[in-house]
Amino acid sequence: MISSSTAGGTGAQTDERGWKVLAAQLRADSIRSTTAAASGHPTSSLSAADLMAVLVASYLRFDMAQPHAPENDRLIFSKGHAAPLLYAVWKAAGAIPDAELLTLRKRGSRIEGHPTPALPFVDVATGSLGQGLSVAVGMALAEKRSARGGRSRYWVLLGDSEMAEGSVYEALEAGAFYGLSGIVGILDMNRLGQRGPTMLEWEGEAYARRARSFGCEARVIDGHDLAAIDAAYAAAMRASSPTLIVAKTKKGAGVSFLEDKEGWHGKALDAAQASAALRELGYSEGAPPLTIGLRPSLSLPSVASMEAARATVRLPAYDVGTTVATRAAFGDAIVAVGDAYPRVVVLDGEVSNSTYTERFGRAHPDRFFEMYIAEQLMVSAAVGMQALGWTPFAATFAAFFTRAFDQVRMAAVSQATLHLVGSHAGVSIGEDGPSQMGLEDLAMMRAVHGSTVLYPSCANAAAKLTLEMANRRGIHYLRTTRGKTPVLYPPSEAFPVGGSKVLRGSDRDEVAIVAAGVTVHEALEAYARLNDLGIRARVIDAYSVKPIDRATLLDAARECPRGVGGAEDHRPAGGLGDAVADVFDGQPAPATVRLAVRLMPGSATPAEQLDDAGIDARAIVEAVDARHPR
Amino acid sequence: MISSSTAGGTGAQTDERGWKVLAAQLRADSIRSTTAAASGHPTSSLSAADLMAVLVASYLRFDMAQPHAPENDRLIFSKGHAAPLLYAVWKAAGAIPDAELLTLRKRGSRIEGHPTPALPFVDVATGSLGQGLSVAVGMALAEKRSARGGRSRYWVLLGDSEMAEGSVYEALEAGAFYGLSGIVGILDMNRLGQRGPTMLEWEGEAYARRARSFGCEARVIDGHDLAAIDAAYAAAMRASSPTLIVAKTKKGAGVSFLEDKEGWHGKALDAAQASAALRELGYSEGAPPLTIGLRPSLSLPSVASMEAARATVRLPAYDVGTTVATRAAFGDAIVAVGDAYPRVVVLDGEVSNSTYTERFGRAHPDRFFEMYIAEQLMVSAAVGMQALGWTPFAATFAAFFTRAFDQVRMAAVSQATLHLVGSHAGVSIGEDGPSQMGLEDLAMMRAVHGSTVLYPSCANAAAKLTLEMANRRGIHYLRTTRGKTPVLYPPSEAFPVGGSKVLRGSDRDEVAIVAAGVTVHEALEAYARLNDLGIRARVIDAYSVKPIDRATLLDAARECPRGVGGAEDHRPAGGLGDAVADVFDGQPAPATVRLAVRLMPGSATPAEQLDDAGIDARAIVEAVDARHPR
Repeated sequence: MISSSTAGGTGAQTDERGWKVLAAQLRADSIRSTTAAASGHPTSSLSAADLMAVLVASYLRFDMAQPHAPENDRLIFSKGHAAPLLYAVWKAAGAIPDAELLTLRKRGSRIEGHPTPALPFVDVATGSLGQGLSVAVGMALAEKRSARGGRSRYWVLLGDSEMAEGSVYEALEAGAFYGLSGIVGILDMNRLGQRGPTMLEWEGEAYARRARSFGCEARVIDGHDLAAIDAAYAAAMRASSPTLIVAKTKKGAGVSFLEDKEGWHGKALDAAQASAALRELGYSEGAPPLTIGLRPSLSLPSVASMEAARATVRLPAYDVGTTVATRAAFGDAIVAVGDAYPRVVVLDGEVSNSTYTERFGRAHPDRFFEMYIAEQLMVSAAVGMQALGWTPFAATFAAFFTRAFDQVRMAAVSQATLHLVGSHAGVSIGEDGPSQMGLEDLAMMRAVHGSTVLYPSCANAAAKLTLEMANRRGIHYLRTTRGKTPVLYPPSEAFPVGGSKVLRGSDRDEVAIVAAGVTVHEALEAYARLNDLGIRARVIDAYSVKPIDRATLLDAARECPRGVGGAEDHRPAGGLGDAVADVFDGQPAPATVRLAVRLMPGSATPAEQLDDAGIDARAIVEAVDARHPR
Repeated sequence: MISSSTAGGTGAQTDERGWKVLAAQLRADSIRSTTAAASGHPTSSLSAADLMAVLVASYLRFDMAQPHAPENDRLIFSKGHAAPLLYAVWKAAGAIPDAELLTLRKRGSRIEGHPTPALPFVDVATGSLGQGLSVAVGMALAEKRSARGGRSRYWVLLGDSEMAEGSVYEALEAGAFYGLSGIVGILDMNRLGQRGPTMLEWEGEAYARRARSFGCEARVIDGHDLAAIDAAYAAAMRASSPTLIVAKTKKGAGVSFLEDKEGWHGKALDAAQASAALRELGYSEGAPPLTIGLRPSLSLPSVASMEAARATVRLPAYDVGTTVATRAAFGDAIVAVGDAYPRVVVLDGEVSNSTYTERFGRAHPDRFFEMYIAEQLMVSAAVGMQALGWTPFAATFAAFFTRAFDQVRMAAVSQATLHLVGSHAGVSIGEDGPSQMGLEDLAMMRAVHGSTVLYPSCANAAAKLTLEMANRRGIHYLRTTRGKTPVLYPPSEAFPVGGSKVLRGSDRDEVAIVAAGVTVHEALEAYARLNDLGIRARVIDAYSVKPIDRATLLDAARECPRGVGGAEDHRPAGGLGDAVADVFDGQPAPATVRLAVRLMPGSATPAEQLDDAGIDARAIVEAVDARHPR
């Protein structure tokens, strides 16, 4: 319902005059805020104003008092640069005071250049293009399988430039495959990208054909024809697949000197231009703003069972001395976590028999999501799920998470709780060769803001860390190993984030060897050999790579006269060695030796790979003995 | 031509009996090599054996004496795990001795688990799925615009699991948009992925519809019907767009107990199974192998002009004290490099008015490639171009290269020469907010094997480093800044890779401040303020982040009693601070202080952002003065 009072209404209304006035206000506010900011994207906002006016006045179901409730529809601006329009929408809904709108892009304002969850009605950060539809896939998929049945709608505003991103097609494909009829993509086909025309310009049918070829419904409309927009939304509400509404629009629509003009991307109007534009839009300073009464949220089936208190987790236990792959231990542990935590969901990139998430899939089929070989989609979908209160674990080979680095980076901006599990880390995978080896993953994940990076050396550690992740908020990365490794710790051992284990040591150690994952076992072997040579070594299992155990490393540096060395199955930059060096920020560091993978591996057995890379026991012994002669 | 002698033939032949015998040999060899290796992907090889037999016997034009010649057709196994088939093909072509085939996956062998350019007829490494078609787009696009006119064919073997990767659609889209009729995608639709059926299984028309919706030609065939395969290739030779041949195949085809069976992905046959399979394939140990005589390469127009000796580069020169953005200086410099170097090509991700590659586009339109917002495609296409002898520079926002980390990682496996230029680095971009800020790019690029990472602080440095990159092989990354910064160095200054500049200093310095890019200017301001406080600082411009100037940093550590500090517009992990710390590998490091971006930025002006992040002059002064009181 649209009114010019400040009181919110409760029902929907299809009133072309009302939409028109609302659209004008959305346009005026997009101009007012960007001109106040002296930057931003007014013209990319204006093109979609009619689409948003009809949507929020007559379709979007949303309870402002509970913005995070899964019963709400979601509104995702995949074209995040149209943020001024988004803020104008939420101002009209009563969620943003007019004065705050004018703080756009100013220091300390929630009204940022691109949307972030600093605002309660923004679920995920956008601004890196082509991710919004995948977020919606995650939301719709988890909800559809849940007791709630996925009856909410996921409205995603897309730009036409982002239709060049392959990730959009990953989302269309999965959305159709899983029959996610709640997803409605609204393509603001305004023909102009940042630096000129898009590939398809106004060939709306071409976009529609693509969407249909992936199994979605699609219709092409005039994106400034309010009745046509209404009809398209109404049809989308009845669709049995995701819908893509291809709306032919004009960039800068509604202001004569901006409409369909090149050279206006990402440019604010100056005061005089803004004044002329506002006049053309019929904006008058003193008039009371329109306020929308959003449609109420759906009343969904009870979710009491899903919100049940978490039961005690019965983690798997492995006997010390047996050999078990950490990836397999993760697979067992996530089943146990899933048994106890009804909100834990698992996604996999079509390698569940390698990551061992297939075990979760068998135990909890309703909470296991096969995302096929589409890592970008997998990560964005997980981000969408967590926005609705699920706790997602997403797994693939460590190497292939590099495919989704942008999505992980954006998850940090989204303040997401996201647990990633990368298997087949390092050269120790053996014969498959470098394309399959995660050798840059620690660098990638350490660089992510607020991330936690864990790398267990044995099965019990992997199981405990899996539970640790499930109990924590934020972005976590668990790195697992392909091959079987000896179980080092008893099942009772605790593995707090930020801790480490001194596996060998005394108060007379000469050198400390810091290792993680597979190199822990090499360090233990090196310890024995060094001991035979009369050299006392301390072996530290740095299972928590970020945050790293500062106290234990500082102790080692103080106590071990020959310094602190490290060996890691990773590139020398950005991994464990850098994490150790970082501990000495602000004080003189001890001598360090870093063993890491400095060559381009080929195919070879795991043991040969560790030898060739110079990160095995022999290499550690040589580094200690040759570089620090007694 | 197919013969059972070891002498190569010269002409093509369409002989169904010959193809059949060849296909049986390709299958037998795929089994023999994987069984010898006791790992690998025989069944994924068998499904495509008929497709490859017809292709190499009757279509592929290739001069074995000049495998890298652009006149050759290219054969790219996008489904890199079918490497045993690829090696069997090249054995049949006489390029791999039978004995070497049996070294598959063994230490030191060129015959790796997934193809790499260790073999001269492999242009790019594959094994991370969904990249081969984009490589072909780069090859075809650069060649089409060149004097040679792009008359070669680019045959790409795809698996059906990788059709879930969005990058495949980026390639189909661009291939069609640019009319790259030389590209023939051969989709080995064997229905089974790693852990079970694919999304579409044998719905061949669904794949064909997708390809057509992007503007490609497509036909569905029986991938084991040799005449149908021949007809499909013949039709593709006449196409005016890229073609996708959707070939319905059976995984493990040709061996009854493997055909279309689940549970055989990535598994070698044991000796008894192999023996039975080889018997079924009619393989007999002693018989002379078939040898293919490949069709000769096309005789293409002269490329003398393209191979011309490089002319002298007339780099732009900027006056010290003026302010110029480093991104603009790169834009000017790459034009000058392009003037002199006819093999330099530039790709951009639809932000050429931000990265300033638009200047190259205007100067050298035939060598400028608009890749639209498809960063994965852009990087893979650049890798394809360099495989044909072009020198590609690819540019987008630093933040958005994270979208293509996997492709950059694979470029290193490909031993590629690839120059990436990331603009809008760090919080200093200002109001646009974190989604647009490159804050993890140094970590990403430092981790890449063999990479060089450059970060100029002024326009003349940016220009010189652009030329430096053009003259070097390997993967380079140039990080540029959005805002204008003062020109610090005269145009005559040299900026060798691995060097640094001591901008301020004496033999009585107390502390060294290491900075790069935008923080160099903050360090200079801090120097002045510290000087006023009576503290002598050394300011080091570490424009070469990798390799970093070890000697200068070791000098600073030895000479500056208060230690070495750093400030960087990047996350604390993986960037300049880690690079500096790495210098002290093997010896005690000095006290260090690392200023880096430890918060999640919002919107603010550039100066406010530097202040909030604590990497501006004030923060540097405080770090020196507070942490190291006199």
